[in-house]
Amino acid sequence: MSNIYGKNIKVSIFGQSHSPAIGVIVDGLPAGFPIDFYELKLFLQRRMPGQSKYTTMRRESDEPEFLSGLVDGITCGAPLAAIICNIDKRSSDYDKLWDIPRPSHADYTAYIKYGEARDVRGGGAFSGRLTAPLCIAGGIFLQLLKQKGVYIAAHISQIGSICDRLFNPVSVGKEEFNALREAGFPVLEAEAGERMLSALEDAKQAGDSLGGIIECAVVGVPAGIGEPMFNGIENRLAAILFGIPAVKGVEFGNGFSAAGLRGSENNDAFIMHGDTVQTRTNNHGGILGGITSGMPVIFRTAFKPTPSISTEQDSVSLSRRESVKLAISGRHDPCIVPRAVPCIEAAAAIAIYDAMLEPSGHI
Amino acid sequence: MSNIYGKNIKVSIFGQSHSPAIGVIVDGLPAGFPIDFYELKLFLQRRMPGQSKYTTMRRESDEPEFLSGLVDGITCGAPLAAIICNIDKRSSDYDKLWDIPRPSHADYTAYIKYGEARDVRGGGAFSGRLTAPLCIAGGIFLQLLKQKGVYIAAHISQIGSICDRLFNPVSVGKEEFNALREAGFPVLEAEAGERMLSALEDAKQAGDSLGGIIECAVVGVPAGIGEPMFNGIENRLAAILFGIPAVKGVEFGNGFSAAGLRGSENNDAFIMHGDTVQTRTNNHGGILGGITSGMPVIFRTAFKPTPSISTEQDSVSLSRRESVKLAISGRHDPCIVPRAVPCIEAAAAIAIYDAMLEPSGHI
Amino acid sequence: MSNIYGKNIKVSIFGQSHSPAIGVIVDGLPAGFPIDFYELKLFLQRRMPGQSKYTTMRRESDEPEFLSGLVDGITCGAPLAAIICNIDKRSSDYDKLWDIPRPSHADYTAYIKYGEARDVRGGGAFSGRLTAPLCIAGGIFLQLLKQKGVYIAAHISQIGSICDRLFNPVSVGKEEFNALREAGFPVLEAEAGERMLSALEDAKQAGDSLGGIIECAVVGVPAGIGEPMFNGIENRLAAILFGIPAVKGVEFGNGFSAAGLRGSENNDAFIMHGDTVQTRTNNHGGILGGITSGMPVIFRTAFKPTPSISTEQDSVSLSRRESVKLAISGRHDPCIVPRAVPCIEAAAAIAIYDAMLEPSGHI
Amino acid sequence: MSNIYGKNIKVSIFGQSHSPAIGVIVDGLPAGFPIDFYELKLFLQRRMPGQSKYTTMRRESDEPEFLSGLVDGITCGAPLAAIICNIDKRSSDYDKLWDIPRPSHADYTAYIKYGEARDVRGGGAFSGRLTAPLCIAGGIFLQLLKQKGVYIAAHISQIGSICDRLFNPVSVGKEEFNALREAGFPVLEAEAGERMLSALEDAKQAGDSLGGIIECAVVGVPAGIGEPMFNGIENRLAAILFGIPAVKGVEFGNGFSAAGLRGSENNDAFIMHGDTVQTRTNNHGGILGGITSGMPVIFRTAFKPTPSISTEQDSVSLSRRESVKLAISGRHDPCIVPRAVPCIEAAAAIAIYDAMLEPSGHI
Repeated sequence: MSNIYGKNIKVSIFGQSHSPAIGVIVDGLPAGFPIDFYELKLFLQRRMPGQSKYTTMRRESDEPEFLSGLVDGITCGAPLAAIICNIDKRSSDYDKLWDIPRPSHADYTAYIKYGEARDVRGGGAFSGRLTAPLCIAGGIFLQLLKQKGVYIAAHISQIGSICDRLFNPVSVGKEEFNALREAGFPVLEAEAGERMLSALEDAKQAGDSLGGIIECAVVGVPAGIGEPMFNGIENRLAAILFGIPAVKGVEFGNGFSAAGLRGSENNDAFIMHGDTVQTRTNNHGGILGGITSGMPVIFRTAFKPTPSISTEQDSVSLSRRESVKLAISGRHDPCIVPRAVPCIEAAAAIAIYDAMLEPSGHI
Repeated sequence: MSNIYGKNIKVSIFGQSHSPAIGVIVDGLPAGFPIDFYELKLFLQRRMPGQSKYTTMRRESDEPEFLSGLVDGITCGAPLAAIICNIDKRSSDYDKLWDIPRPSHADYTAYIKYGEARDVRGGGAFSGRLTAPLCIAGGIFLQLLKQKGVYIAAHISQIGSICDRLFNPVSVGKEEFNALREAGFPVLEAEAGERMLSALEDAKQAGDSLGGIIECAVVGVPAGIGEPMFNGIENRLAAILFGIPAVKGVEFGNGFSAAGLRGSENNDAFIMHGDTVQTRTNNHGGILGGITSGMPVIFRTAFKPTPSISTEQDSVSLSRRESVKLAISGRHDPCIVPRAVPCIEAAAAIAIYDAMLEPSGHI
Repeated sequence: MSNIYGKNIKVSIFGQSHSPAIGVIVDGLPAGFPIDFYELKLFLQRRMPGQSKYTTMRRESDEPEFLSGLVDGITCGAPLAAIICNIDKRSSDYDKLWDIPRPSHADYTAYIKYGEARDVRGGGAFSGRLTAPLCIAGGIFLQLLKQKGVYIAAHISQIGSICDRLFNPVSVGKEEFNALREAGFPVLEAEAGERMLSALEDAKQAGDSLGGIIECAVVGVPAGIGEPMFNGIENRLAAILFGIPAVKGVEFGNGFSAAGLRGSENNDAFIMHGDTVQTRTNNHGGILGGITSGMPVIFRTAFKPTPSISTEQDSVSLSRRESVKLAISGRHDPCIVPRAVPCIEAAAAIAIYDAMLEPSGHI
Repeated sequence: MSNIYGKNIKVSIFGQSHSPAIGVIVDGLPAGFPIDFYELKLFLQRRMPGQSKYTTMRRESDEPEFLSGLVDGITCGAPLAAIICNIDKRSSDYDKLWDIPRPSHADYTAYIKYGEARDVRGGGAFSGRLTAPLCIAGGIFLQLLKQKGVYIAAHISQIGSICDRLFNPVSVGKEEFNALREAGFPVLEAEAGERMLSALEDAKQAGDSLGGIIECAVVGVPAGIGEPMFNGIENRLAAILFGIPAVKGVEFGNGFSAAGLRGSENNDAFIMHGDTVQTRTNNHGGILGGITSGMPVIFRTAFKPTPSISTEQDSVSLSRRESVKLAISGRHDPCIVPRAVPCIEAAAAIAIYDAMLEPSGHI
């Protein structure tokens, strides 16, 4: 198993839900950058468990400890290593899972791939907890990007059947971004948020869970970042986004809805805005031919409902090769989408920063 | 620019629409495999231009010429190089595009990235024509996978507002696959196909174009292929699928529609099927925690409508920095989805074969 | 900066000489392997400082702490993370080095590359101390290789002008290997070792240092590992060996001395040994065309003399741009070769194990 | 098998000695560079067979044909593909080699790795002929480097027991370089060259062959290129140099002879040269801690004697598993070192250009 992302930078994640620690190595940080640790802490708190009654009750401070890469809080050019110690582990919650895989979890595929020796406790290396080190790395890259005038923000655009309005893909911007970053429940329309919270409460009461969609915007990326084919911005973003547990779909700009449109509806006319070439609409989501157009990069990520539900489900005993019933206890979010919002921002920051380091395309 | 995909194999694509040739290097083929050149030819014909009145009128035989990697038609272990010479080039069609980027094409972003020296003729390196070498590579991997009992097929699941029925994700299989491979217009329900063709005719008459969705199934992949996080099967597939021009979305299993479901609806119960562990439903699309479950791998890819339409559009003059009107002539598909079906199969074959070469996860 | 090695496995090293910790992430370990921690400890002790009066007086227990990748001491398939906390740091020893680069150290090039923010303390990320995490990774791979019948051992073949005899490249083997592993000063001929120790004493008295050569043998690698050109075993070994500080040359088999031979002298005749094809001599060092021949892999690595010497040297002030004199205090080995022996074995184990995971070359 | 080198650029080589063509894909060339095809032709001629009576009599024009990546001879940013068709193939020369591996060739290891299906003709993918596409790529990078003020030249520093003088590592420069590039037999001292030619004649008469050493210098590389550990300039150069057939050793600066020196002899004092920091001597070969110092990069590469000799040798029959005698006919260089000189320059150009594209190490 290898959890390394990036070409010009490398983000390498390690740890299991109940191992002594989880962490990340970030290679390729430029020397001389003073990390704003307070801002990073605020960012990490957005994905921390225990934020509300709709998230897992597991208590972890998630304070990263920095082992290398810094001198007096300033990057020194060496790989940055940060760890979070796992404290609140209740491995006994997972005892029966050694034999009975939870439906739609990775328990069964982990068993096939890694055999008896796999770490079952808390989902092992498949745990959503591994997004904490992703956020440490992403939080640092968000700061580096901000210095270059690139801003990233995401909101919950759907939970269950409740939808938030989408970003205006042409004019999304800083004020909206600031509001989202400070929101306890990041939506663009407060009323949609209320209804989502109510739907979450219903699902929780029913011992059930909900899926959702997160929309993310990246503004300020210069035109000309990316490449056609396999190194395009869509490829790079998708390659990291599908690394976030429970993600089952990624779309850019109009995405799947473009399939139902005509070219005359979906095409984005070029216009002059002062001396800058822009597009009148942004159905392309800021990427044409794999390369940024200078318009906001817009994408949406679909999350399946948390597979851990308290309702009894059908499963099998791996040792006895027979059907059994399974009721999952343990501490789980009824919907991971709210806590996944900063993870999406983190992933986007990592992918965009990496792409921006590519050598220029011309002499 | 670098168009290389793969870790254990490497597929490296080169060429521009109007360069002397386009081609592909395939590294990592095992020695001793007798390529079925007739089957490969049939496969390549499925994406060839000039197949019907709804595809570009450009005539290319698309016969690959093999430069290396073979001895008497059998792979010898060395990199396999295949080229297709470009013959029917009408570069004059593209003269005005040096200055006026076509809306929703890569003309503008290519200009920003590669500058004045970029190849504008026929879309240069951004042309859909580059999927021909992708299909050469993919066609060979399809044959290699077949030998391992892995089969891949795709169908047009949507064009404009017309939908084909979806695969039954639990029982998709060989007969359906054979029918699709031989169909001139690959859909599961003939009647839906008729209506799609009629919609295409309408769009063509209107000088317009249509988008669509392709659904693809991979059956026979053993359980246990892939990894969590960044090397998951979803990541690997997405990383190649977004390399196909016009792809704007990728989803696995229930994908975006999982966002609207509850866990109790979306979870796939484990059942015993003889001595084999299976899932009763396949909402997970054959992938859990990035690793194959042994169920069919199911994914859908969204294509935007062909941006080349004959209707007059707004654009800008890059040299004069002012708005201009653009009417695109040239030879273009009103919808690239039909010809993209084998490209999706090719891409899937490459990604799946590459993943299957990963070392085992346990001792 | 990125310190990642490997294709099928990934060894990622982090830390600076005086950062809170140094460490390594090892990706790609198979699940189910019970690490022999006592054996690993003995291996790590071979490179530990403070072993004799000829090594640095810095005291570090170098006990690795394992943060992930294990369940009850058995690999679980997840990335293995191990750290060593830095305790005995005397950063004040390095104060003047911020401005005055030590001759033949990396101080100046680090300054140019990473600027003012670089970590100067103890050599920062350029410190030989970073070979400790390399040895953690390598020590584990040595155990995995042993299980596959592959054994690696190295000896000091030269220090200053004193030479040990070389391995017999045809018949090097287990007994010799065991003796070397247990030797305090790993040479094949005790008498040569005595003379080397005496030369080291002389150099130390003179405030000077010595270079040397380490010869390493890998036995038991099956024939057929590797590839021609850039993925050959020589390339893979060299790519990691030059990562060990102070290495300035690498040669395989007859190496540089082959340059002075005729083909009739250097060629290795093929012979049958029972049913096995072998070579009568092993001037090729077990590698032909980048691929292992089944004969022992033999290579030598040249180390420059430790650049830290107490004699006064000429340097410059980076701030004042003028010549200055520099006398280096601090704690340094007069020759790093003795402690580098296990590092060479570790590096070889990593490279060879990685190469052995490559997919088979034929069907 | 995969013959791809590089991180920021990718050089991908394909072909076998007797396949329809050999060639190279070069990814990552900047758009807008006008290749000097005449200069490239002159460069390629330096490695062409048939240059003198001491090289193979195989006749190939080695004129590259460019398939992509160019518009009117100027790079357009797309992957550049160039091929050389194989014309003068005498495959019958190699008939008996299917069963009897030539000593110290890759015939046996290729058989083990790739099995019966391997290409034996002319050495297949192991042929020195594959250095022709390496030189196409390298020849282009040499031109790109020249534009940045970086110059590379190599000379034969040893053939058999005859040595040329070495470069003065502090003051090597353009005049010397120009002379070497135009020399038929690139040595620094004409008299040494005469003696080498005479030694070659002797070896040829004896049906034997000779090894040798090539020394290469790179001047004008700015200080600060490279990284410590695995991405150092030594690692990068070694990783490509060992890809040239017959290379068995690589050393930088004082290399193996540094092993016999004291620190006080081997250390390079820093001095001010105007406002530039330099070193008084250059025993470090221009690289400290994996990073360029601004001094010339100096390295030497050892070549074993051509294994193809006409003297009868001992080998085995792979089918009959018994000892046999083998006398090699065919067309072979008695020493490949003279023709390898441009290959070394090409390899160095590729590695250095790739390293120079790395992102800056600081903010």
